[in-house]
Amino acid sequence: MNTNPFLRAMSKKVVVIGGGTGNFVVLRGLKYYPLDLTAVVSMADDGGSTGILRDELGVLPPGDVRQCLVALSNSSRLMRSLMNYRFENGGLGGHSFGNLLLSALEKVTGSFERAVEEAGKILYIKGKVIPVTTHQVRLKMVLNNRKVLEGEKDIYLSQEIDQGYKTIYLEPFAKVNPRVIDELKTADLVVVGPGGFYTSLIPNLLVDGMCEAIRECRGKKVFVVNLMNRKGQTTGFKTSHYLSELTRFIGADVFDYILINSQKPSKELIDVYATEGELVENDLDEKRVIYADLLGRLGEQVPKDMLKRSLIRHDSKKLAQELVKIVDHL
Amino acid sequence: MNTNPFLRAMSKKVVVIGGGTGNFVVLRGLKYYPLDLTAVVSMADDGGSTGILRDELGVLPPGDVRQCLVALSNSSRLMRSLMNYRFENGGLGGHSFGNLLLSALEKVTGSFERAVEEAGKILYIKGKVIPVTTHQVRLKMVLNNRKVLEGEKDIYLSQEIDQGYKTIYLEPFAKVNPRVIDELKTADLVVVGPGGFYTSLIPNLLVDGMCEAIRECRGKKVFVVNLMNRKGQTTGFKTSHYLSELTRFIGADVFDYILINSQKPSKELIDVYATEGELVENDLDEKRVIYADLLGRLGEQVPKDMLKRSLIRHDSKKLAQELVKIVDHL
Repeated sequence: MNTNPFLRAMSKKVVVIGGGTGNFVVLRGLKYYPLDLTAVVSMADDGGSTGILRDELGVLPPGDVRQCLVALSNSSRLMRSLMNYRFENGGLGGHSFGNLLLSALEKVTGSFERAVEEAGKILYIKGKVIPVTTHQVRLKMVLNNRKVLEGEKDIYLSQEIDQGYKTIYLEPFAKVNPRVIDELKTADLVVVGPGGFYTSLIPNLLVDGMCEAIRECRGKKVFVVNLMNRKGQTTGFKTSHYLSELTRFIGADVFDYILINSQKPSKELIDVYATEGELVENDLDEKRVIYADLLGRLGEQVPKDMLKRSLIRHDSKKLAQELVKIVDHL
Repeated sequence: MNTNPFLRAMSKKVVVIGGGTGNFVVLRGLKYYPLDLTAVVSMADDGGSTGILRDELGVLPPGDVRQCLVALSNSSRLMRSLMNYRFENGGLGGHSFGNLLLSALEKVTGSFERAVEEAGKILYIKGKVIPVTTHQVRLKMVLNNRKVLEGEKDIYLSQEIDQGYKTIYLEPFAKVNPRVIDELKTADLVVVGPGGFYTSLIPNLLVDGMCEAIRECRGKKVFVVNLMNRKGQTTGFKTSHYLSELTRFIGADVFDYILINSQKPSKELIDVYATEGELVENDLDEKRVIYADLLGRLGEQVPKDMLKRSLIRHDSKKLAQELVKIVDHL
């Protein structure tokens, strides 16, 4: 066996499933290893700039794809800053430039997937970014109190989900992108999480054919557990709750590894974060659990948008190191 | 003397002064020759998408620069289409993507010139595009009837300029970009025109130091006369009128060549165009006048925006051939 982890990781195929900040952190770390990387991205985003573009232009949601492209980009720092730049005033106010690039490319090429491909060329990305579906979908959730949450943004902002929900679904019915199935067929490792549980992870599993493809995938699967529970969403969730929710959606407990942070953030930081949520406690004691220090340092460079939302977050380098250790043992 | 025009033209420096569609046509033709090309671009544009960006974001006008970048671009047809793509709905409605790219780059880099340079890299442009000034200026015109036209757009739309004007000026006072002076110092050929006379050409000459630099330039100068007079702007102008106006602004009759189209458009086309203006008649009979068929064919591929405005226009290939003939003789 080759003892150089770089060489052993070479050409192993890693498929990362998610959307949003969690995906960004995983991909940015893995980018530096000689892996065959694929990001599968949720298409449920409908907040902010993305929501306006969907409503006004009828395009597919660019926001999460943009974040993945930036994470995988080998272009200059300027280009990456440009992609995340948000216009501040007037009719453009709030739009990130990268979203406009993807939407304009979708209009010019007539295809969102082609747009993602072309944006990937402009940004010299490593690997591939693939939308989980190319259907125009909305995420909906019916709570136990019969309230219907219409759209990912409403669900993201809800503080009542932890009181129980009846169902979460995509409307209209959407089929998985066949390219995602192809990627999963040849994946050596599938990474699920971290990320907004009901807004970034679960929406991928609601696409018809996706869970079947994950179950049939012969590669190893790792679940990266969130550091924090989001208040009103996953309040009180321990690792086992996350796992059983995923198992329910996927239709089987497919995970070979469960990656959990072992390093506690400072009390000050936990206090600051208290309005947002609390630390996830681990209640699993199984062989497949991997404990490691995955905690991000404060002051690490992340796009401004994310900083606000993720004072306590994974460190992309530490996370990538642990994932590559798994790949090394495959 | 080398008999291959390509080789003879090699590394000769050609500086094209203008803005808007006229510049586009010249640059697109010259791009295919082994010349050292520089486009000097007017900064007076304040209509449409450009005007909104100036007002809302406080950026320098991207529109004319974008056209020059696209003209000089060696990137894919898709990239060029993307630059000229205009959003159709909502808060983005009317904005061309290329304008948004330049404005976002200006915000991210803090410099319009740096933005132009970076956009040039993204578009693999041949040559350089240089704003005539980096001051934030507005074009103003006082008519004989004392009406004040505020801004290039108002001047472009006015139908009274041919009744006489007292003055045309930039506000506030603006100095020429020193890089333009450097380019003119080493230019072998300077091309002025074609283009909107008071809205694209003259604004370049109103920048302090520009006319002096043109007078002191040792290279040859060629004036490419417009095909059509624009109604209410240059109604009734013959070649000599254009020349004497330019001479008045520049402070000397600097032109070594005057390039005039010899090919009459069809009567049908002239009739269609009649609401816009009439053909320019030539009244000069001098050695420096070059007559040539410069007429664009209908159906030639030009960006949609331009097509509407320029049914009768120069052919970029024919125009470039005549300009390269001049370069050959230098």
